[in-house]
Amino acid sequence: MGPGPSAIAPRVLEAMARPVIGHLDPEFVSLMDRIKAQLQRAFRTDNPLTMPVSGPGSAGMESCIVNLLEPGETVVICQNGVFGGRLKAMAERCGATVVDVKDEWGRAVSPEKLASTLDRTPQARVVAFVHAETSTGALSDAAALAGIAKDYDCLTIVDAVTSLGGSPLEVDLWGLDAVYSGTQKCLSCMPGLSPLTMSSRALQKIGQRRKPVQSWFMDVTLVAGYWGGSARRVYHHTAPVNALYGLDEALLMLHEESMEAAWLRHQRNHAVLCAGLEALGVDFFVPPAERIPQLNTVRVPAGINEARVRERLLEDFDIEIGAGLGALAGKVWRIGLMGHSSRRENVMACLAALGHLLMDEGLKVSVAEATAEAERALR
Amino acid sequence: MGPGPSAIAPRVLEAMARPVIGHLDPEFVSLMDRIKAQLQRAFRTDNPLTMPVSGPGSAGMESCIVNLLEPGETVVICQNGVFGGRLKAMAERCGATVVDVKDEWGRAVSPEKLASTLDRTPQARVVAFVHAETSTGALSDAAALAGIAKDYDCLTIVDAVTSLGGSPLEVDLWGLDAVYSGTQKCLSCMPGLSPLTMSSRALQKIGQRRKPVQSWFMDVTLVAGYWGGSARRVYHHTAPVNALYGLDEALLMLHEESMEAAWLRHQRNHAVLCAGLEALGVDFFVPPAERIPQLNTVRVPAGINEARVRERLLEDFDIEIGAGLGALAGKVWRIGLMGHSSRRENVMACLAALGHLLMDEGLKVSVAEATAEAERALR
Repeated sequence: MGPGPSAIAPRVLEAMARPVIGHLDPEFVSLMDRIKAQLQRAFRTDNPLTMPVSGPGSAGMESCIVNLLEPGETVVICQNGVFGGRLKAMAERCGATVVDVKDEWGRAVSPEKLASTLDRTPQARVVAFVHAETSTGALSDAAALAGIAKDYDCLTIVDAVTSLGGSPLEVDLWGLDAVYSGTQKCLSCMPGLSPLTMSSRALQKIGQRRKPVQSWFMDVTLVAGYWGGSARRVYHHTAPVNALYGLDEALLMLHEESMEAAWLRHQRNHAVLCAGLEALGVDFFVPPAERIPQLNTVRVPAGINEARVRERLLEDFDIEIGAGLGALAGKVWRIGLMGHSSRRENVMACLAALGHLLMDEGLKVSVAEATAEAERALR
Repeated sequence: MGPGPSAIAPRVLEAMARPVIGHLDPEFVSLMDRIKAQLQRAFRTDNPLTMPVSGPGSAGMESCIVNLLEPGETVVICQNGVFGGRLKAMAERCGATVVDVKDEWGRAVSPEKLASTLDRTPQARVVAFVHAETSTGALSDAAALAGIAKDYDCLTIVDAVTSLGGSPLEVDLWGLDAVYSGTQKCLSCMPGLSPLTMSSRALQKIGQRRKPVQSWFMDVTLVAGYWGGSARRVYHHTAPVNALYGLDEALLMLHEESMEAAWLRHQRNHAVLCAGLEALGVDFFVPPAERIPQLNTVRVPAGINEARVRERLLEDFDIEIGAGLGALAGKVWRIGLMGHSSRRENVMACLAALGHLLMDEGLKVSVAEATAEAERALR
């Protein structure tokens, strides 16, 4: 119940333990096709270039940056947490000029600020932003931000690591161009893969590059020769076969439930947790309209030893929650309700355990009241 | 029994299916320490910077290239197969000037050619070569090549993807500076991780860089902040926890057997396969003294439909062998005897099945004779 990895469903764990087969085996090629189709459904896109990058979310992030940007190009990067800052670091390392749109940590990206920045940055070719900022718990309006980027003829790079499978994400409807995610959040699969999708507009820009992509490993044109739709797959690297068994099964489970039902489940469990935490006097760090349902960032109450509470939660109750990152270290907890971890019994167990530990730390709170409030929110 | 992934031992598959834990969990941190220590033993090194890169072998390869080279620097790259060519492509993409040492595919890298090239390339700072060329089956003398590089004050980047765990590899004794491998060859773990080790000389050069490493994801200084020896781990990316469970178990199995015993086993099973193949009239592509025991590259006999034989081996006998890559496509087969796949029963089954199919294709061969020769070599 931290900011990821989330708990992996037994079906997915079993799938990963199947005997490995060759990465060019005909059966493996069918598996790749099935994963691609399932990822397209999850991303809500028809993009032919939709595949998992063989690395963690930051490899997906860097794949988008190095393919879409060339040295000397200008990119507007919205930053309202750690991962916006990471996008900037990557863009600078590949020689792009970064123009900042800065918002307070814990708030959504401001569409107005993006528009005014683009107004005075006519040379910008690309806009990058984080849909669900895992470091702060703030959800931005990706549709609005992408609409503005399009008005200024910019492509969008969108971090959907924590949103995919947990919050509505509509790649085609919203017109997003390069979107990456992670498998260890709301897909509840093993960490280490980064689902990626790119629009035809993105591929067009990549096709017109003057310089080759600086990374051979992350050059999506090469990777797509292996994952792509062509009859003859070209070897690029050895795919992480067992992790892909798991991803296939995790996507199957997601679609058995349906995207809409999964979004609703994440929203409902968030509401239950929220009611209970309020009764415990624990405040959210993010205003209600801007919260990521699957990642609840709350302020550590005054006078509480935040590290001790987290350690005791883990040791005495087997519940992991996350600490604050960067500027938020020591100030917040991040409680994840992602994928297979987003279940009523987890919410109730977390409320009871946290309430108990807060009492132990000297706060006057009632666990019974908190769980009663949560039960009420359930109905 | 192709060029990898090799079969994964049941113990390793079971380990991967354990429930995921947080990538900053204290128990996970002990696991990381254990993996590091076991990798040091496998690489035969005391290098503190020894860890698995969270990506396949080519991510390990690119990690070495982008950290050790700066734009404008000169690197000598020995090329005797596909993977030497890949090293060159990566080095060029990061702005380095590449000077080639070319050897025939199927032959070891020539130490004399390397020395004469370094003689006329005083500006070279780094030498890169492939220890065991997976595309051709040729094993080069890494100790000799590294010795020459050192004479010319060059650091070495060494591809040990197919050698680690199968052939003697002595990182400290031979003075290798940046060595990467893969988990899906002689370690018989799931594909998707790349064990990496770097010497203090390599770290010294990295510490003196004028420009930041072009890749944020592959910047070893950042990754080492997470994997490194310091008490306080700094979050870099979410580690592929389940894959690391598997790697830990695979390394445990390797050290239970001992490195020396594993090398001997690979050598013995190679000798058995060799005797049987010779009796079948199938010739090796590589001269005896330059063969990788765990990757047997043989010429497709004249008049044989190579793809049909491979397909029937897979479909009728459940045995995968590899096709030729690049210039060797259609001309050779690559029979892997790596890690958990390097077992007597696999050798015998492969000989019997291949002999049967060659007879079916019209060759006059005796399966009985081939297996008898193999049995003889076993004694």
